[in-house]
Amino acid sequence: MQNYFSSNFKLGVLGGGQLGRMLLTETQKFDIHTSILDASQSAPCAEICNTFVIGDLLDFDAVYNFGKTVDLLTVEIEKVNIDALDKLEEEGLTIYPKPKDLRIIQSKARQKHFYFDHQIKTAPFSHFAFLEELQHCVENSIIDFPFVWKAARFGYDGNGVKIVRNYEDLVSLPKVECITEELIPFKNELAVIVARNAKGETKTYPVVEMEFHPEANQVEYVICPARIEDAVAKKAQETALKVVNELNFIGLLAVEMFQTETNEILVNEVAPRTHNSGHYSIEASYTSQFEQHLRAILNLPLGNTDSKVAGIMVNLVGAEGFSGDVIYENIEEVLQIDGVTPHIYGKKETRPFRKMGHVTIVNEDVNKAREIAQKVKETIRVIA
Amino acid sequence: MQNYFSSNFKLGVLGGGQLGRMLLTETQKFDIHTSILDASQSAPCAEICNTFVIGDLLDFDAVYNFGKTVDLLTVEIEKVNIDALDKLEEEGLTIYPKPKDLRIIQSKARQKHFYFDHQIKTAPFSHFAFLEELQHCVENSIIDFPFVWKAARFGYDGNGVKIVRNYEDLVSLPKVECITEELIPFKNELAVIVARNAKGETKTYPVVEMEFHPEANQVEYVICPARIEDAVAKKAQETALKVVNELNFIGLLAVEMFQTETNEILVNEVAPRTHNSGHYSIEASYTSQFEQHLRAILNLPLGNTDSKVAGIMVNLVGAEGFSGDVIYENIEEVLQIDGVTPHIYGKKETRPFRKMGHVTIVNEDVNKAREIAQKVKETIRVIA
Repeated sequence: MQNYFSSNFKLGVLGGGQLGRMLLTETQKFDIHTSILDASQSAPCAEICNTFVIGDLLDFDAVYNFGKTVDLLTVEIEKVNIDALDKLEEEGLTIYPKPKDLRIIQSKARQKHFYFDHQIKTAPFSHFAFLEELQHCVENSIIDFPFVWKAARFGYDGNGVKIVRNYEDLVSLPKVECITEELIPFKNELAVIVARNAKGETKTYPVVEMEFHPEANQVEYVICPARIEDAVAKKAQETALKVVNELNFIGLLAVEMFQTETNEILVNEVAPRTHNSGHYSIEASYTSQFEQHLRAILNLPLGNTDSKVAGIMVNLVGAEGFSGDVIYENIEEVLQIDGVTPHIYGKKETRPFRKMGHVTIVNEDVNKAREIAQKVKETIRVIA
Repeated sequence: MQNYFSSNFKLGVLGGGQLGRMLLTETQKFDIHTSILDASQSAPCAEICNTFVIGDLLDFDAVYNFGKTVDLLTVEIEKVNIDALDKLEEEGLTIYPKPKDLRIIQSKARQKHFYFDHQIKTAPFSHFAFLEELQHCVENSIIDFPFVWKAARFGYDGNGVKIVRNYEDLVSLPKVECITEELIPFKNELAVIVARNAKGETKTYPVVEMEFHPEANQVEYVICPARIEDAVAKKAQETALKVVNELNFIGLLAVEMFQTETNEILVNEVAPRTHNSGHYSIEASYTSQFEQHLRAILNLPLGNTDSKVAGIMVNLVGAEGFSGDVIYENIEEVLQIDGVTPHIYGKKETRPFRKMGHVTIVNEDVNKAREIAQKVKETIRVIA
């Protein structure tokens, strides 16, 4: 059996951002040698991993050559060169999640086709290789305003997603492969993280709820457990598990879903890695999503996904109007509150809306945690 | 106000062992630049801190020169050159814990005098500058067998402590400054960690209990909360707090105590830093002792010391008869159990009784945790 702990085994990670950084906490806990590839010398992981290599994650040679130096390869971001992963896998390297899954998930169009092919409920969609095709459909009333537009590849955090309400919106869209979806009214946006290892063991985390700002349409709080009926939660967990099982996925899959007005669960999209919606688990769960990711890809027994206490996460993003050396205004006030833990991602420069960190609030009572989360959100500010 | 988070502020730590390593988890979480001084290139912290400097912690120049490169200095071990710290402090460097406290605590004799001078209950003792003086007292029946002998300086983990039952034991003692104590029968060995920051804010952790092997007289389990009466727990916490307040201590102080047959609380000794008896806090507490240490020395508000769940710690020490490249036998069986987290300190070579890691067991029910802890202890083995 492979010995991972304080051994010569080398884990490789594509990407050295905040997700990689929080994974390093776990590889350090288990003393697993970890090499990281990232394009930036100032990446959050650069100074604190065992080996740091600079290279473009979308460059074939950079990924291939890095892969040749490690014993097992994983990702903290899905925007990587998959041709290089295919070749490394052919040559015998173990890569989790599997390149074939990354290839499906990299494309929102392929994801959608996958859900349809496997009877996983998702919002109806159309797929366009070029923007002109979409414009043509609109002009011919095949698609009506309003609708949701999504770039097929490499959208994240609101980039690459738009609600298109009129011609002005339509003509300003990037000229790329895309999908469109009906604008479905939903009660809740939910997420479930599922872990699966090579033995086929699976563990499902509780359902979390994304609470949106009533006007700004931005996620403000990720809340665990979601304040929904048990039957809906069960359906969401079963749906997430079905996606994982249909893919024969190995690693951690974060499944984002809509709960419709009629309590249907529709898969929105998935991420093949640790996810913002699971950050609460560091403080609240028996096994954090980062430790679970390691357990899954190393084919170790999966850990308990139950929560010790309720957890709420607030993202720390750069305030509008500030760029430069970051200051976390009023962080000391926030540290004064019981059960509040800031995580600072190690980005020295803030920019408007840049993800700079997050704060976790834990409490035995989810409603009390929600009150404190609001206070945290109103207090701390990321400025320069 | 000093900005610690993603700033140019540099924290210096004397010592790069496992305590430093677990502190790095917290400095990484807050993105506080951390420089470490340690004599060994293979120290657990070497690869994962921001700056690693090689140097002997007992060497004046090594400590002084290192201190000149940082903005605030702390320790993960008390065996350091205090003359260098005095000079650095004179020259304006902030050092927590304060050098004057380290000087008292480095010497078990000075500790004992301090307790007596401040009406803190401790076992009666005698102090000898030379072993010959002790031998003389025994020969003249001023001290009777059996008694406890402790080297005045630099004992740890059973080194430097012996029960002396006869002349043979006596003549085999090292020829160093020492203290002796009456051998007091006790019901329990307890510990309490107290944090205090420069504002004078204090927070006290729950009382933990060290459970000994019935024959081997070795600590087997550290159990939080201690299974003792509330009144005794309260007395132990008050005693620990009194030590901290009498010292005007800044940082984390771990206070080890005896509960006598008559429910008296006697201070045994203290450590001016994070401590083995607080490792359970990483998984069980709202604020881990490592985060609390940071909060205390940086004069940040102290965190909640309550527990989310009960926690038990089992040390992982090298098995007898094995030296060389370490293997954690049956670690996968242990990972299969809910609520079990191994911590591997990153020492590549095991030796008999070397501290190689620990395992934390958390559970809502302390008795259930105790059962699991026993299973863990009987399952995992540190071999080569």
